[in-house]
Formats: sequence, structure tokens, C-alpha cells
Amino acid sequence: MAGNSFGKLFKLTTFGESHGVAIGGIIDGCPAGIKLDFDAIQTEMERRKPGQSKIVTQRKEPDQVEFYSGIFEGKTTGTPIGFVIHNTNQKSKDYSHIKDVYRPSHADYTYDKKYGVRDYRGGGRSSARETASRVVAGAIAKQFLSSLKINAFTSSVGDIALDKPYQDLDFDQIESNAIRCPDQETAEKMIKRINAIKKQGDTIGGVITCVIQNVPEGLGEPVFDKLHAELGKAMLSINAVKGFEYGSGFEGSKMLGSVHNDKFNKDGSTQTNRSGGVQGGISNGMDIYFNVAFKPVATTLQKQDTINSSGEAVEMQGKGRHDPCVVPRAVPIVEAMAALVMADYALLRRQESKDW
Amino acid sequence: MAGNSFGKLFKLTTFGESHGVAIGGIIDGCPAGIKLDFDAIQTEMERRKPGQSKIVTQRKEPDQVEFYSGIFEGKTTGTPIGFVIHNTNQKSKDYSHIKDVYRPSHADYTYDKKYGVRDYRGGGRSSARETASRVVAGAIAKQFLSSLKINAFTSSVGDIALDKPYQDLDFDQIESNAIRCPDQETAEKMIKRINAIKKQGDTIGGVITCVIQNVPEGLGEPVFDKLHAELGKAMLSINAVKGFEYGSGFEGSKMLGSVHNDKFNKDGSTQTNRSGGVQGGISNGMDIYFNVAFKPVATTLQKQDTINSSGEAVEMQGKGRHDPCVVPRAVPIVEAMAALVMADYALLRRQESKDW
Amino acid sequence: MAGNSFGKLFKLTTFGESHGVAIGGIIDGCPAGIKLDFDAIQTEMERRKPGQSKIVTQRKEPDQVEFYSGIFEGKTTGTPIGFVIHNTNQKSKDYSHIKDVYRPSHADYTYDKKYGVRDYRGGGRSSARETASRVVAGAIAKQFLSSLKINAFTSSVGDIALDKPYQDLDFDQIESNAIRCPDQETAEKMIKRINAIKKQGDTIGGVITCVIQNVPEGLGEPVFDKLHAELGKAMLSINAVKGFEYGSGFEGSKMLGSVHNDKFNKDGSTQTNRSGGVQGGISNGMDIYFNVAFKPVATTLQKQDTINSSGEAVEMQGKGRHDPCVVPRAVPIVEAMAALVMADYALLRRQESKDW
Amino acid sequence: MAGNSFGKLFKLTTFGESHGVAIGGIIDGCPAGIKLDFDAIQTEMERRKPGQSKIVTQRKEPDQVEFYSGIFEGKTTGTPIGFVIHNTNQKSKDYSHIKDVYRPSHADYTYDKKYGVRDYRGGGRSSARETASRVVAGAIAKQFLSSLKINAFTSSVGDIALDKPYQDLDFDQIESNAIRCPDQETAEKMIKRINAIKKQGDTIGGVITCVIQNVPEGLGEPVFDKLHAELGKAMLSINAVKGFEYGSGFEGSKMLGSVHNDKFNKDGSTQTNRSGGVQGGISNGMDIYFNVAFKPVATTLQKQDTINSSGEAVEMQGKGRHDPCVVPRAVPIVEAMAALVMADYALLRRQESKDW
Repeated sequence: MAGNSFGKLFKLTTFGESHGVAIGGIIDGCPAGIKLDFDAIQTEMERRKPGQSKIVTQRKEPDQVEFYSGIFEGKTTGTPIGFVIHNTNQKSKDYSHIKDVYRPSHADYTYDKKYGVRDYRGGGRSSARETASRVVAGAIAKQFLSSLKINAFTSSVGDIALDKPYQDLDFDQIESNAIRCPDQETAEKMIKRINAIKKQGDTIGGVITCVIQNVPEGLGEPVFDKLHAELGKAMLSINAVKGFEYGSGFEGSKMLGSVHNDKFNKDGSTQTNRSGGVQGGISNGMDIYFNVAFKPVATTLQKQDTINSSGEAVEMQGKGRHDPCVVPRAVPIVEAMAALVMADYALLRRQESKDW
Repeated sequence: MAGNSFGKLFKLTTFGESHGVAIGGIIDGCPAGIKLDFDAIQTEMERRKPGQSKIVTQRKEPDQVEFYSGIFEGKTTGTPIGFVIHNTNQKSKDYSHIKDVYRPSHADYTYDKKYGVRDYRGGGRSSARETASRVVAGAIAKQFLSSLKINAFTSSVGDIALDKPYQDLDFDQIESNAIRCPDQETAEKMIKRINAIKKQGDTIGGVITCVIQNVPEGLGEPVFDKLHAELGKAMLSINAVKGFEYGSGFEGSKMLGSVHNDKFNKDGSTQTNRSGGVQGGISNGMDIYFNVAFKPVATTLQKQDTINSSGEAVEMQGKGRHDPCVVPRAVPIVEAMAALVMADYALLRRQESKDW
Repeated sequence: MAGNSFGKLFKLTTFGESHGVAIGGIIDGCPAGIKLDFDAIQTEMERRKPGQSKIVTQRKEPDQVEFYSGIFEGKTTGTPIGFVIHNTNQKSKDYSHIKDVYRPSHADYTYDKKYGVRDYRGGGRSSARETASRVVAGAIAKQFLSSLKINAFTSSVGDIALDKPYQDLDFDQIESNAIRCPDQETAEKMIKRINAIKKQGDTIGGVITCVIQNVPEGLGEPVFDKLHAELGKAMLSINAVKGFEYGSGFEGSKMLGSVHNDKFNKDGSTQTNRSGGVQGGISNGMDIYFNVAFKPVATTLQKQDTINSSGEAVEMQGKGRHDPCVVPRAVPIVEAMAALVMADYALLRRQESKDW
Repeated sequence: MAGNSFGKLFKLTTFGESHGVAIGGIIDGCPAGIKLDFDAIQTEMERRKPGQSKIVTQRKEPDQVEFYSGIFEGKTTGTPIGFVIHNTNQKSKDYSHIKDVYRPSHADYTYDKKYGVRDYRGGGRSSARETASRVVAGAIAKQFLSSLKINAFTSSVGDIALDKPYQDLDFDQIESNAIRCPDQETAEKMIKRINAIKKQGDTIGGVITCVIQNVPEGLGEPVFDKLHAELGKAMLSINAVKGFEYGSGFEGSKMLGSVHNDKFNKDGSTQTNRSGGVQGGISNGMDIYFNVAFKPVATTLQKQDTINSSGEAVEMQGKGRHDPCVVPRAVPIVEAMAALVMADYALLRRQESKDW
């Protein structure tokens, strides 16, 4: 209830602070008999980890997952999968300067008000380091959902936006550049912008688009647990996310019904897909696609005026190695959360229908 | 699990199809001892009900709530509040023409694929009629949360947008016009546009903004159940919603960190509020505000080509009384869902802290 | 969270006080496409209702269920089934004498301490009248689980115990007498005892045995949600229940392992069934059987010394029409709760296994 | 949903197989600011661990808990407490003889039918080794609930029963003997019996009684989540448990209402306590007490006929170091589960009442 679990049938619970002994989690409800590809899991970890390119934080953390249970002779057993990632890069001394300081637009202040105590080292529980556990679970969910294709990519950095529809993109190009934008020309512009921002000690926001293909019809629960509502919650639970839209999104609110409606083909597919693959909260078999907006990283390397826990004005300055833009590392996190939602709804669908 | 419940501690479960005997719900977990103002509940119902103005559907439904339990001598007893709204306007014959037809961008097709059977009358369970139950529960949540101020209003219709910050608006003006926009000049433009659209038998989308004030610090759970993530899910679960953003939202993704960060005042409040009242998923005491995008209503009065359940091409035309724009009637629904989230998180907060 | 829901996937939420307008509930998660036998549902209601024989309370309540949603053309639609039973026998004046009195071994005192307010009429929410809603839901669960056989019967009243193993009983005889004991000779003794007790204005306890047959293997979740643990909770949630045991039960604790172990036959069935059809929390395909102990009804017609809400000594006397022994009317309730557990675990099983 | 979590607000999720890398769990929802006594936690582990006396299994496992998160400078932080106990005594070769064999009255057969794959080493997930994680969480729950007194003890072994009411016992004597029976004379008889049984290579069952004192009024949810129903489920989820009764229990079913009813004192306490501290599912401030029946351990050292996974008859014999009677080591597990239930219901109570 304290909010560290996600999913109903395919359920992830995570633990861990950025500078504690370890982070990790338990995946409960993963079906038995799935032969796991551990290299594929580690590959997802590499996509999220710090230090992978020049436009992300230069911290070094191996992010090696250890599985403690739920797997036997390479296959899932249906029992909970416990896993741990040790924090090898704990330099707690680095953080003494922020012990009593509330960093602007971080969670320091709200954690203190909520809990009274706080592991201030590196953001503690509020650090995006926690998302490494989501990537582990998402990687396993992807293997369970092997027939689905889940691709996320950077669609804007600041005001540099990819202006092609996703159908015109080659998803195989996503990993070909540091920003994870499948259009090379736009990618270069984005990277250039981030490098310029980084030199100023500043940060910048961006948008990630995610496309889920080969989705069967009938996934999603009506009323409160609509498929897109759960996807929205999943995305909004990622650190730094400020908005979510699917299908026609905010643009759709400007349209006329006669234009917006998706006409059916005889096979039940639709000629347009402003619905974004979901009608009435339930998948209709068309591609699901959505956008996720990320704010600029709150930690800049510029001096900032702020307060400490005694309400005194203090000056602070971010030190060391921080991401100038969160989106390239957030791409695998968006995919992981999408996979967790789809795995959960796939199991919900299975129990309602014998023949799925 | 089938998705007809919302909330963890303050929990609403709803039932009912638009043309069945009745709709209704159960509110479980409402604290005991709250003296209910039944007129205030009915007032919320009036704000949502059809036929209230010329720019909404002219259907007539009294939407009279009957409470069956959980209230004794005018006060909540802590036991579940069962309530029912009878469907008095059931003209089932009206709907024979859509029995086998899949209306474009409605949920007819997906319900059929999911369940195999479907109460096709008036959209059945997928009809926005279900939201009347949410308004009942939200009205009770508001009374529990009497110290909070929750105000939603129409901030755009099509491309006509209210371009003032919410701080410059007088929320007392929201109910003064049919579109529920507190700026009279913009309201008139919106109404005019809707009337024009209506004459064409067409529909149009819009955006609702919601502001929650007097929020205590410390509401919201870290990681997966962040306060804004739950608000997002709540809004995305409303019929026709395509997007959600809070605080700086999608615009925030275009900004630099040095500009976006909210500087602290000595009392812990912030000079700007791009965070939208939530940091790290937890309320910081500033106003919470967010935008909700609605697509145009899928039922137009124009002829549309579509298919039936046998995959044959058919022509259909919406009949009778439909909303040309959903936003004015959705304003109280947005408020209701916001109230349900806040009530739930208030109870979660109470159990963690003795002195809230 | 306030405890008025049961089940995870096949989920019942109930509302209602014994002397409010109505009681009822919502069944969420019942699979679509089940053709309902409404007579069978009403038959279960008749088995539970007051006034059905001379050894139960002579109150008259028709207990007519009205279904408001979730059913279309006689079949379940997969959407929530809302139902209501109006309280036709509300004589609130009858209860003024207990308004401020705490009846011994009732829930009056604890409800007051917990909630501060209380609908004192007829026990309010704590009345066993609430179980009528369970019987409705259980009757539907039975129809979903049509291949299972669920039979409960009275196995003891006071110290009069049925001393035959259930395998020697003819379950078709259960409904042939007022006490619902399939052995006529024992039934007569039980009825005679109850009549004698009744004349004294006293009450007596008893035990109900339940047998579930044709259970597939693999139902039940390991560790915390063991099948028998959920059955135990289901039974212990019924008013007046004091104990639960399954398979060898408390007697099993006196045995040696070499005697207690169930030897396998080659087909995986076992020669004995001290396990009670469940091993490690998971069904093994053998009959599930368990005992449920009921205390004597707390309302006697004798004078009792007690206190009122001001802590003053008062004398009270139960009036009118009360059950001298709860077990005959509790038999269908035990079956209903067993059916709810089995339906829920059947759905849990379906999502884990495609071929169930 | 797969059943590896317990509790709603104070929630434990466990993972781990008996011969995997490690077992462990996540406690989510433990309030912030609790100063932990780590020695007290380890003491509970010592009470459960193998090898502690001559009447339990002679396996050696240090059972050292490592905490990975949720604790900072010795205090809980409100974030999830992740913990791990490494399995140091993994001799997997020991178990090759049972790889394909279904041990009678174990969970081998049902796990195979449910999951298709199974970690057969030492029982895997179905091993009582999992309960070590429960003891860790229970020890923390006890510290949160420091005002409550939770004492469990052995009240029978086979047919040797402690025949004193718990009020006549000195709970300080529980740890003074190997069987954990506070009456020394009875304890000696029990130990003698177990030693005799052990020599025969056999096993025996028993009963544990648990008493919870200093319970505030008002804990427990009406209807489905009655306090005793949750306690019952908690106990029935422990390996080898066959029955649960509270207050007057099964004996209560033989009594008359006039005798069974608990008369009130003027202060709201009762003269007798057949209710077992719970009325209508809610605590009344009197002692809560209940009995838990354990079957004899299924693994005996005698030869047994059984089958393998091909349905062939095979002979098997338990090897090495097994418990002849599970009850002495189960005493701390019963206390741990009781503490988890009470902690969860204490938090549920806090959210409903500001002044608890």
C-alpha cells in the first residue's frame, strides 16, 4: 500500500536506496516455464546504466543483476523471482553537503515532511536508481510477451522534435546513436544541443514516444483500469515525467469528431488510428502509441539559492557527474514499464478467456 | 480486479449499464461521523446531468441518487455506502439500429472481442453514464476533504484556449456559463463554436484544467503510487480522455533546468510552481494543477460508413440527443475523480502519521 | 480496504444494514457468457431465509433479489453484477430498547468503540442479514463452477454429533430435514435438542462440515494464499464462527507421521485423504473437506444483565423471533463462501495455465 | 496475486527456495522513525533456526539477516525494507534421490501439477525455510507494536496436553525448555515423547496457543476482514497447519448461549472471555487467544512406498536431519504471523481514527 508495488497479477515490488547496500525487487506472478535469456536482461541494464555515452552521467556502476530465486535450470518456476543489484559506487561522503539542504525541484523537502527521516545520500529512495529494478522486471516481462514488439525512442529534446510519424521510422536505428532517436539527422541535432547545454552546466527536458505492436484484441479492463489509464500511471510513476498522451493526445482535443473518428476496415482494423490502439480502455488490435514528457533534470552544475532544513537560505551547487538530459537513459525504462503493464493485462486477459 | 473499483482505502466500486435497471456503487472506507449535505451531492449530480443547457445533450434524466446503507441519522457510519441511480429514460427500442453495428471510435468492437456478449443499448457499460456514480462518490469525498478546494473548468474547446494563468481567474465564475469557463469572454467564444459545430451535426474536443488548493504536505506515495501518477490514472479512466499533464507538463519538456527549477522561499513554499504541487510523487503544499485532454465525442449526427459484427460494410447515423462537446459535463467528473484520489491519499497519509 | 470485499479476481463487495433500505452487492470479475439460472439463485436464498422451518427464526422476509446490471438476455456480460435485496421487514421501533444497550457477545460495544456512531437497529451492519448477499454471489459462483460439487451439512448440534464419515452419507438427504443433517436419525435428535433449548429461551452452537468434490489439481497459491488458508478466512468471516479445520484437522495434531501421511496410488490419487484435498496450499484432486464451528446465538430470550453506553448496569431481554441455533441457516452460507473461494482460485488458475 | 504477499498496509512479500542462493523479502509500509533493535531480530531468528536443541533438526544454518534498504542510521525510513538471508547450507546433491519422487503428504505432486517445473531441492519454495523471512518481518512488527504482548507456546504434543488456562502460566518460562511449553512438568513429558518418536524415525503433531495482550479496542474490519479471520488465514498459511480456533473455539459450539455469553463489567471489559477478545470481528480490549493445530512432519526416517513423476511405484526414505515435531520451532513463526496481522490492523485503525 506504501506504493512500492506495480501490477496485479504480474507484480513487481522494489526496494532500495541509491547509496544503500543494494537495490532490487521481487517479481511475483511471472508464469512458470519461461526460458530466460539472461544476456537480453543484462543488455537492457546496459541501456539504462550510467556512463554508457558522453551525453549521460559519467558515473560508473556495473549494474550487475543477481537472481536469488524463482529460476531453476534456466527457467522460471512460477515462484517469486527475487533479484538484487549491489550498489558498488557508494561514496557517501560525496553527499554530506546536501545532508540538510533541500535541493530545488527534488524530493528532499517532501520526503522530510512525509517521513521525518531521510536517507539523503544521492536522493535515497527518490533517486532514479530505483528504476534499474524496473528494467530487470521489464526485461523478463518482454520475454514473457515475446510476440509483442515494444519500442520507445526519443522524439524530442527541448524544442528539437522528430517530425515524422512513427510508421516512417526504422526502429532498428534506435540504438545506433547516443540519444536513441531513430532519425539520424534529428539525433545529431539533439546530441549537439545536449552537449551545448552540458557545457553550461545546465539540463534540458524531452519527450519519449513508445509504440507497442502485435497487441491482441481484448486487453484492458473497462471503467477504472482502462489499458491506457494504467499505461499512463506507469509512465507518470517514472522520475521526472510531467505528462502522458496516447493516440491523438492533446492534439485530438482540437479536432472535430467527423475527422477524429477511426473508420473501420472490414476486418475490424481501422483506416486511421487516432484511438492509439485502445477503444473504451480495451485494445483493438491496432498499434498502441503514446508520448511521455520529461522535465529537465533538477540537478544542474550551476549555483542555486535554496534553503536548508532549518529554513535558512543557503547556496548549493550540483557536483560531479549528472545527466544533462534524462531521456536517452529513460528510453529503456519507458519500455520496461510498458512491458510490465502489458504482461499484467495479458494475464488478466488469460483468466477471462480460455482461448487467448 | 476486473477494473470496476477505484482507490485503496477510500474505495469506490461501480456497476451499471446506461440502459439497464439502474447504475450505482459502493463507497467502502469512508470515515465514520461525517455529516452529509445531501443537497450538495445532488448539486454535483445536476452539474453532470444531461439537459442542463443548450450546448449539452437534451436527454432528460433526473439522476436522483438513493442511498441504501452506510448513513444513519444523516451521518456516515463507517460501513459501506451503497447507492443507486435508477435509469428512468430507458428507451431500448432506440438502440436496435446499432445492435450489430460497430460505431467508429466507440467501444462496441472491443467489448465484443473481449466479452463475446454485449449490452448494446446506449453503449451499455462503456457509456459515460457510469460516471454519474463517480460524481456521487466524489461529492462525498469532497465533504470528507472539506478543507481542500477542488476546482475544474474548461480551458479550451477546439483551438479556442483560455490564455490566462489560473491564478488570474475567479473560480466563482465557473458555474456562471454553460461551458464552465471562468473567463466570460472566452466562454462566449467557446459556446458559439460549439453551437456552430452542433448545427453541422459534428462534435469537438477540449481541455479541462483542475486546481487543488490547500493541500497539506506529505500526500502521495513514492515510486509507483506517486500522487500525480494516481491523478493521471484517475483522469485517463474518464471516457474520452486522451492526455494528462501536471505542473509544467509537456511545455516543461522544452525547458532548461536552470529555468524550470522552483526556488524555495524560507517557509518551504516555492517562488514558482512548475512542479505543480508535487515533488517526487509527494505533495509539497503548493497548488496542484493539471490539464486533461478530451477527444471529440465519437457519436456525430452525420452519416458514417462502418461495419457490423459480420464484417459487412454498413452506413450509420447517430440519432437524437448527443453532446456536441463533452467538456462542460465532464468538469464535475474531473473534480469528482480528483476528490477520490485526494481522499484516498489523505487516508493513506493518516495511517502513516499520527498527527495529520 | 475497510473489509467489505472478498476475492481477488471473482470479487464480491457487499453493503447494507439489517434495517436500512436495502442490502446488496457488486460481483466484479464474473466471466462473461454464463447463462444464469435465476430459480437456482432464489432457491439458495430460500435455504438461508428466516421463517423456513420451526427451528429457525419466525421472521418473515421475502429476500427477493433484484439484479440491476451485468446480465443481458439472461447471460452474464463480464461487467459488474449489481444486485439489491430490499429490507421489507423494517420495524425500527422494535429496536429502541437496545439503542444504548450493549448486548453481551454481540458487536454493539466494538462498533461503538470503532466508529463512534452505530446503526443499532437489529445489529445494523454486524447482523447476519449481510450474508444474504454472500448467498446471491455464491449461487452465481456455483453456476460458473458447475463441474464442482459443493455440499455443506450440519455435523453437530451441541454434543450431538454425526459420527459417520462423509463418504457414507447421501448428500441428497441434506435438504430433507430442517437441520440439514443428511443422517435422518441424527437429524431428529438434533431437532429435538433445538426444540428443547428453544423452549428455555436459550440457544446452542454446532458444527457444519463442507465437502467440495471434482476439484481439479493445481488450485491454490503457495505461501500466504494457500487454498485452505483462504477457505479458512472465508469461513471465519461468517458471523458466529469460532473455528476452522480441514482434512485431519485438530485430530491430526495427535497423530504420528507414519500414520498421517497419505500414500499415493499410481494415478496420483491418495489412499487416504488426511490432507483434505490440499497439499502445500494447492489442490491435489482429492475431495476438499473441512469443519466450521459456530458458537451459540448470542441473543437469547432470557433476561441478561448488561451495561449501556454510559457504563450503567441494565437488564435486557431478547424479544421476538430469533434463531435458537444458527447452523441450519448457515449451511447455504458456508457453501456460498466455499463457492466464492473456489471461483476466485479457478480464475487465478486460468491465468497461470492456458489449458485449464 | 500469486500469493507471496501478506498484509495490506504493513505488507510483507517473500521470495526464495530452500536451496537457492538466498531467501528474503520486502516489508513495505513499515512506519518511519522506528529505532530497530537488531539483536532482538536476530534472537527471533535463533528461536526458529535449525540445530538449536536436541528435539529439532540438527541442520546447521546461521540464518544471518542482511538488511539492504529502508533503514538509515538505525531507524526505519518509511521506504521498503529489503532483506536477505543467504542459504549457506546448500548441499544439492543430497536431493537427487527425490528429484522425480513425490514424497507423501508433501507438496511435490501439487507443485508439479501446478507449475510443470519444480525446484525439487529440499522442497524448494514449499519448504518451511520460507518462514524465516516471516520471522524477520514479524520481529520488526513486534517493535512497531511495542505496547502489545504477543506470546505463543506449545500447548500439546500428540495427546500430551497442557491442561491449565493460559492465565495460570508464566510466559517467562516459555524459553526455558526445548519444547517451549511454559509448564515444566508438561514440557518434560512432551520432550520425552518426542525423543521416543524420534528414535523410531517417526514424527508427531501438536498444538500451539498464542495470546495477544494489551490490544486496544477497535482493531479489525467488519464483514470479510474480521480480525480473527485474518489471524486464521495467517496461521493456516504456515506450513503443516490443519486448524485454527479462537476464544471458545470448537468447544464453544457445544455450549448454550446463556453460558457462552460474556457478561460486561461496567468499564466495558467482560467477566469471561469466550469471545477471545474479538466481537463482530473487532477487538474489544480483552486478551486475544487462539489455538493452531500442526500435523506431524511428513518427512519420516522410515521407509515409505510412493510414486515417481512417471507414475511408477518407488520406495523412499527420508535422510539425515529432520524435525521429529515441528511445534517448538513453529512457536516464533506463530508469533511473527500474529505480529504481522496486528501491525497491519493497527495501521488500518490509524487511518480511520485520528486519535489512536
